[in-house]
Parts: sequence; C-alpha cells; structure tokens
Amino acid sequence: MNFTMGSDTASDGVREQYFSLGEIPGVLWTPAPDRNTANGTPDHADAPGIATVQPRPLIFMGHGGGQHKKAPGIVARARRFVTECGYAAASVDVPNHGDRPQDERYAAIVAENQARIAAGADTAPLIASFQALVSRQTVTEWRQTLDALQQLDHVGEGPVGYWGVSLGCGLGLPFVAAEPRVRAAVLGLGGASAPETEESARKITIPVEFLMQWDDERIPREAGLRLFDAFGSPDKALHANSGKHMDLPRHEVDSNVRFFRRHLGVG
Amino acid sequence: MNFTMGSDTASDGVREQYFSLGEIPGVLWTPAPDRNTANGTPDHADAPGIATVQPRPLIFMGHGGGQHKKAPGIVARARRFVTECGYAAASVDVPNHGDRPQDERYAAIVAENQARIAAGADTAPLIASFQALVSRQTVTEWRQTLDALQQLDHVGEGPVGYWGVSLGCGLGLPFVAAEPRVRAAVLGLGGASAPETEESARKITIPVEFLMQWDDERIPREAGLRLFDAFGSPDKALHANSGKHMDLPRHEVDSNVRFFRRHLGVG
Repeated sequence: MNFTMGSDTASDGVREQYFSLGEIPGVLWTPAPDRNTANGTPDHADAPGIATVQPRPLIFMGHGGGQHKKAPGIVARARRFVTECGYAAASVDVPNHGDRPQDERYAAIVAENQARIAAGADTAPLIASFQALVSRQTVTEWRQTLDALQQLDHVGEGPVGYWGVSLGCGLGLPFVAAEPRVRAAVLGLGGASAPETEESARKITIPVEFLMQWDDERIPREAGLRLFDAFGSPDKALHANSGKHMDLPRHEVDSNVRFFRRHLGVG
Repeated sequence: MNFTMGSDTASDGVREQYFSLGEIPGVLWTPAPDRNTANGTPDHADAPGIATVQPRPLIFMGHGGGQHKKAPGIVARARRFVTECGYAAASVDVPNHGDRPQDERYAAIVAENQARIAAGADTAPLIASFQALVSRQTVTEWRQTLDALQQLDHVGEGPVGYWGVSLGCGLGLPFVAAEPRVRAAVLGLGGASAPETEESARKITIPVEFLMQWDDERIPREAGLRLFDAFGSPDKALHANSGKHMDLPRHEVDSNVRFFRRHLGVG
C-alpha cells in the first residue's frame, strides 16, 4: 500500500504530520526538534526511576464513534503524550468516519444506533455487532499503519501503547489482542456485550488501565465490570468515575500519562 | 483533655512531632521551616491551576488493623503529603493498637479474626462488628484530635482530608460522615458488610477516591462495589487494581496526592 506524508507543521513543541496509507487518512504527532524547555531540560526529565527508551514509544489512538482522527479529545491527549513523555502518537480515521467515504454497511447501523440512543433503548447489542464488523477491517488497517509509521526515522520500532475508549475500546480490544507490539493499553467506556469482546479481553495479558463511567447511560455497569474482569492481564486497573458516558473527568488524562510512563518509559 | 507535644525532630524537609491528647498518642507531620528546595521554590510550586490554601490543609490518617500511627505505609504517605502538597498530616493509635493498652473487649475479637483469616473463613461480618464497636470510640477521639491540632499555629483551621484503608476505612466512614471539616477522603479495602457501613457511606457527599483490590481475599468484591455505589458523593472515583488485600500498588499514592491537591489545594 502507498504510504505518503502530507502537511507538516509544528506548534508548542509538537510536530503534526498528516499521512495516508492507501485509503486510510491519519495524523502523526512527534516532539518538535526544539521541544526542550527554556532551561535546557526536556519536559519529561522529572521522572525519577523511569527508563528512557530509544527508539521512542508510540501511542496509537482509536477515536470514538462519530468522531475522527483529530477529535479534540484525541488531539489533546496526543499532545500530552508528546510533550510530557517524549512519545510519538498517531490516529487514523475509522471506516465511515472523518475523511473516509461513507460506507453503506456501516451507515445503516450508525443511523439505527442514533435512533436507539434518542429513544433511550438498549444500544449495547447493536454497538457490539457494529464494532465486531468494523474491527475485522480495522485490526488489519491499524497493524499496517504501525508497520508504515515504524519505518519513519523519527518514530522507529519502539514499544507501542494503545489508547481508546467507547468505539476506540470496541475496536481496540481485538487490535490489542492481535498485535504483540502493543505493550500497554488504556481502554474503557465499553462492556462485555458480545462473546467476541470478552474473548478478546481474555487474550490480552499486557498492563491495562480500564476507564468506566459509573452512571454510563450507554454501557450497563455489569457489562463494564465483566469486561474488566475478563482481561487476562496480571496487572490491570479499573478507574470508575461518577458521571455519564461523555463525562470522563479530565484528570484521567494525568493518570493515563503516568500509566504509559510506568510501562513504556519515556522517549 | 490534656494536650501535650512530645519529641520534635525534622528530616528531609519534614518536621515530626509526637503528641498526646489524654490517653491518645499521635504524630503530627508538617513542612520543616527550611523545606524550600535548593533553587528557592517550594517542592509543590509545579502545580498549575491549583490554589494555595492558608491555613494549610491537614490530612488525618487512619491506620490499618494490627498496625499503628507510625506504620511504614502511614509514614511514607504522610511525608509525601507534606513535601509534595505543603500539608500537615497526622495519625493517632486506634484503641488496642500501637502504644495504647490492650483492651479486652477488642483483643478477643482481634484474636478470633486472626484465627478466621488463618482458616480461610469469612471474616467480613466479624470485621464489620469490630469496626462498628471501635468507631463509637474513635469518631469522638478523632474529632477531639482535630480540635487540638487545629489550635497549633503551624496547623491552623484549614480544610481537612481523610486517608484510611482497611480498618482505616471502616473507622473512617463514620468519622467522615460525622465531621464537616473533612472535605475529601481516600478510603478503600473495605466493603458494605454491615448496614451501618452503607449508612455512613450514604451520608458522605464530599469527593471520594475509593481503592479496591480486585482479588481481595478478605473483602468480597461485591461488598466493595456496593460500598462504592453507596457513597452519596456526586464526585467519586473507584480505583480497582489486580491483586490481593495487601498488594495495593505503590503508584496509587501518586493518585492520592493528586486527588487531595485537586480538592484541597496546596498549603
């Protein structure tokens, strides 16, 4: 597949490059060459006991349903992974999202799902079947994206982390289960609502930080707890915060940053 | 009651003073007068957007069963609250623990509990009845301790945080429910195994960070989740980590530090 780099800009210590791999549009964030702070030490030099890793770790990020590779929550986290950890971060549009063409198979399910959310009906089974369908495509796409990005000099073949909640969790589970380069994963806002989901979770044995919203109106609490319980990881942590599906507290990003630093070191 | 200060030492930026209030022995940790770092800025000056609070906040800490006011886990956390937040921290011996005389009413229950742990039997109901009994005494003692400590010039009447897990959770619940000076609490390694426990939790409406061990051999998972669910707090977070009762990961202290800084500011 054809891998081409597009627009290349930098701001506040973060270099942002668009790329495309075949028909998959993506964005790569890396430390800008002048990322050192005024006093000459990198932003992440305050990490006692955290190993510096070369080549730098890469966080691959899966966006939420109806969102895209540059959704504000993705960009904000990517910038923190770059500036506070010295990592690379990348995200691509999921099929039927962002700059990708509408896919009729998916669009019908999405429309049906929106209708169920509006009606307050149970959306879990439909979401699960949608995610199972899309993930057959994304697992391959995302692995190919890693192959391409790791050939770039300023990325390299360092350890990979995965970050994804909601749709990013549903698609992330089979990806993380299949991809040995991923060494630590933040997942969440998802539940064990289909047998495939739980099956993927059981195959995952890397450290996992799992985010739940205690009053999630879309994911039944029991399904979230069952998914957390299913992870095969000896080192896993559940962070459940009060609030609904979209109320994930901002300070969980601090926790995600520290989680990746503990498990991937700093770049 | 007679309040007297005892031995007064300082090391690594932390002043440590023994005190006694009537028959209750305790320890107070505060920033040592020379706590500024080499470059002249306090250790906690790196907190963007976190309010500086005067008088300084105080973290009152409840120790675990069989432990005492200077158990390593208490001292280590107290020192971090002092050096990283500029707080005061204090802990007292629970009746029948540490430097306090053996109390026959409690000793019999403790012995029975040890036997049940050794036999792998269900200890939850016994622990709950023990904690209910002791807390009738400790709620009063701890409130009187706050009264006394807050009269010290280097403590003052700032906001109070509570930290306590296991026995420190069982005794902390009715204390936090009763004491309006407590504005944020870290609790955990406890479960809703008695009606009083759940009742206290419902009365608590301040921010709570609740620590669970997912494979706790002493607290049934269901009882831990039910206790978390019972908190009346609109802002509550559950952190459940893989591992047994005594395996609380060290990095949760980082999280506790940030939790208190968010809710109490820095001193």
